[in-house]
Amino acid sequence: MSEHNSQQALNYSQENKDDFLNELFDLLRIPSVSADPKFSKDVHEAAKFIKQKLIDAGVDKAEICETAGYPIVYGEKIIDENLPTVLVYGHYDVQPADPYELWDSPPFEPVIKNDRIYARGACDDKGQFYMHVKAFEAMAKTGSLQCNVKFMIEGEEEVGSNNLEIFVNENKEKLKNDVVLISDTSMISMDTPSITAGLRGLSYVEVEVTGPNRDLHSGTYGGAVANPINVLCDMISSLKDENGHITIPGFYDKVEEYSQEYRDTLNKAPFNEEDYKKELDIDAVFGEKGYTTIERIGIRPTLDVNGIWGGYIGEGAKTVLPSKAHAKISMRLVPNQESDEITQLFVDHFNNIAPDYVKVKVTPHHGGESAVVSTDSPAFRAAEKAFKDGWDKKPLPTRDGGSIPIVALFEKKLKSDVLLMGFGLDKDAIHSPNESYGVENFFKGIDTIIRFHGHFAKAE
Amino acid sequence: MSEHNSQQALNYSQENKDDFLNELFDLLRIPSVSADPKFSKDVHEAAKFIKQKLIDAGVDKAEICETAGYPIVYGEKIIDENLPTVLVYGHYDVQPADPYELWDSPPFEPVIKNDRIYARGACDDKGQFYMHVKAFEAMAKTGSLQCNVKFMIEGEEEVGSNNLEIFVNENKEKLKNDVVLISDTSMISMDTPSITAGLRGLSYVEVEVTGPNRDLHSGTYGGAVANPINVLCDMISSLKDENGHITIPGFYDKVEEYSQEYRDTLNKAPFNEEDYKKELDIDAVFGEKGYTTIERIGIRPTLDVNGIWGGYIGEGAKTVLPSKAHAKISMRLVPNQESDEITQLFVDHFNNIAPDYVKVKVTPHHGGESAVVSTDSPAFRAAEKAFKDGWDKKPLPTRDGGSIPIVALFEKKLKSDVLLMGFGLDKDAIHSPNESYGVENFFKGIDTIIRFHGHFAKAE
Repeated sequence: MSEHNSQQALNYSQENKDDFLNELFDLLRIPSVSADPKFSKDVHEAAKFIKQKLIDAGVDKAEICETAGYPIVYGEKIIDENLPTVLVYGHYDVQPADPYELWDSPPFEPVIKNDRIYARGACDDKGQFYMHVKAFEAMAKTGSLQCNVKFMIEGEEEVGSNNLEIFVNENKEKLKNDVVLISDTSMISMDTPSITAGLRGLSYVEVEVTGPNRDLHSGTYGGAVANPINVLCDMISSLKDENGHITIPGFYDKVEEYSQEYRDTLNKAPFNEEDYKKELDIDAVFGEKGYTTIERIGIRPTLDVNGIWGGYIGEGAKTVLPSKAHAKISMRLVPNQESDEITQLFVDHFNNIAPDYVKVKVTPHHGGESAVVSTDSPAFRAAEKAFKDGWDKKPLPTRDGGSIPIVALFEKKLKSDVLLMGFGLDKDAIHSPNESYGVENFFKGIDTIIRFHGHFAKAE
Repeated sequence: MSEHNSQQALNYSQENKDDFLNELFDLLRIPSVSADPKFSKDVHEAAKFIKQKLIDAGVDKAEICETAGYPIVYGEKIIDENLPTVLVYGHYDVQPADPYELWDSPPFEPVIKNDRIYARGACDDKGQFYMHVKAFEAMAKTGSLQCNVKFMIEGEEEVGSNNLEIFVNENKEKLKNDVVLISDTSMISMDTPSITAGLRGLSYVEVEVTGPNRDLHSGTYGGAVANPINVLCDMISSLKDENGHITIPGFYDKVEEYSQEYRDTLNKAPFNEEDYKKELDIDAVFGEKGYTTIERIGIRPTLDVNGIWGGYIGEGAKTVLPSKAHAKISMRLVPNQESDEITQLFVDHFNNIAPDYVKVKVTPHHGGESAVVSTDSPAFRAAEKAFKDGWDKKPLPTRDGGSIPIVALFEKKLKSDVLLMGFGLDKDAIHSPNESYGVENFFKGIDTIIRFHGHFAKAE
């Protein structure tokens, strides 16, 4: 029966492709950038849009749940208390689109070029969570729903999901589920489907180094007064040694060292370093000594400067010895490293290494915990079958370098299995100019989600 | 006779204070920022303004001399071929006013607060060169000119005076003089007048470090692909060792090591380190090991990052591994270090130390040569007398850390004595937000210039 039911939904999806795409475009046109207060109205607008679309798709109940920040859109359709319940998590907020000048087309005016949708959020995460709304619609409208479905779509993922934990804590009964289903990750390639079985955590800080109390003339003072940019460069440089190891005391204390056997398995994933370098136009990869690229991304923590600024950055030359220099620095964490603890280690270390001729200030931004997803759960097995149906290949389990802090939260607070069924590709350029998402990925994702529901309903 | 003549001019200056100040304000209102093309019209506007003011002040001839860049305003009054000729050099262009938000009042709307004129260019160099226009007017209108006077006011000093050398080469006869008189430097304090007897040279470069060909998600790639900001920090940090010595091979080859005796003399200049630190709100000074603050500024070369930028610098957090990072870096040079040579040493070194996982590009901006001014010339002695008249103190000769590249040019091409009679103070905050110039400095400067003409006319 389930196969038959799924087919009706798959047919519905096939017949309504244009509408599905048009609706996604409407959503992509809303610049719901959560990091920048000037888009506040748009973020709220996106929440309203989603509530309406959930209603149109056939939920019994949809609501905008206010938080101390941006609201969470909740929706549900309970067809039978005895059937398994799928809780779909996604986020309607997007990364800032800066720098705008590097976009080939405006980030909030979606276009299709070469069978790809170009827009901020095309993949991360509007394109991906909206697949679930449409898969649900296809099943609901054809009477082929086989699981209860709940939606929890938030608007603060890109700024740390600060209010989600409170919401989850206060709504444990309402959010009760048999699996939290998330599409916010990527696959290896269209030829090699994969399911994310591990994610890194995140610590994110902003540092400020202050030298003199005002910008100075670099001729009159240069050489005699510490330049905060030079000092910031020294301090950042000292955070890693010549082998790419992070020098913050205690940083690696809880990092798990894997067996050679596990590492060998990990390194069996298809990876061509020459193609990788060519695609990024780099002459060499670079990372922690003693680890492969796959290991560096999957099982090792990192420290990256995400932004730096100070002094005169306009055209031409200005001989200023600036008062201040700033940087945004993030660390990707692996299982057992706790975000708050690592952030505190960073703060202490950065203050400790500050020379006496400058003042430093470290401000923590959001963090998030790493997560390891079970590859032996009913949901994971159902997902394997769903991919097998559509791709004719068993998906590979992978360790993803990114962070979705709420995965650990769901595991801890809702005692849920989490399934990371992402349909993105590396080339989607999420968080970058010209973010895109394959039209094929969008529709194949919808079909795979429909199939997942069928398999999960029957899963042991 | 000269004392009598000077007195008439001094009286005129006293009686026309308000007009002098109002005219300066009109000039300060023109945002003649040479570094930023969007102010191009204003830079030309400033040139026209000055030509008219020279005519009003009484020159026989004034002209706007076009160059490949911004024009040079020339004016002259020859009263007697047998009398000495003073060539006044100054510049009507100003530094960019960025960051605007740090100004307490708009940079191009001059105001007087606490007897100080606040505006971009108030001191550097509009306020200073305009003293010469008004001193000339006072002498010309009262029939008390004792020297021939020529003006050469350029509009590209803040961007390297690229076209001045051509102009000087092509107009050697026209520019013939007995002293080039420049007010574009500062004094120790109002209690301790001083005359600049040495200036540092300048090399200024812009560097670009490119990692991957596009901004990447720091989760998906972080740890496996070199981050150009981290690499730029490493590279900048490596440019100085732990003693503050610059590590560029050959950098110090031509730097003169002074005798202890000379250094002792230099260190006799009044300097209170506690006051210096307090004024800048720093807990410690910092510079090359083995040298005092006065030596670090006066006789040692430097390397300062004047600006740095890369990645996400907006509000909030963005987890980007950027494609590019940039910095503006300048080196102050001491006598015998040649700007072009040092720039080339930098370019070679920076390319040499670039790791293979990034690409680097170094673009030289303008440079300039250092200069040492004779303290035993007729002009210097006349200046000493002029200061003595007004301050009742003999001015101290000082080594200034800044650069006025054209000083070396005048010495070389015009075979001229150069006199750096600056009336600025450290607190003027030139090149910084809230640049200012003392009203007293402006008027006392005019009087000192008038007196200088009197003494110079009689000098041996």
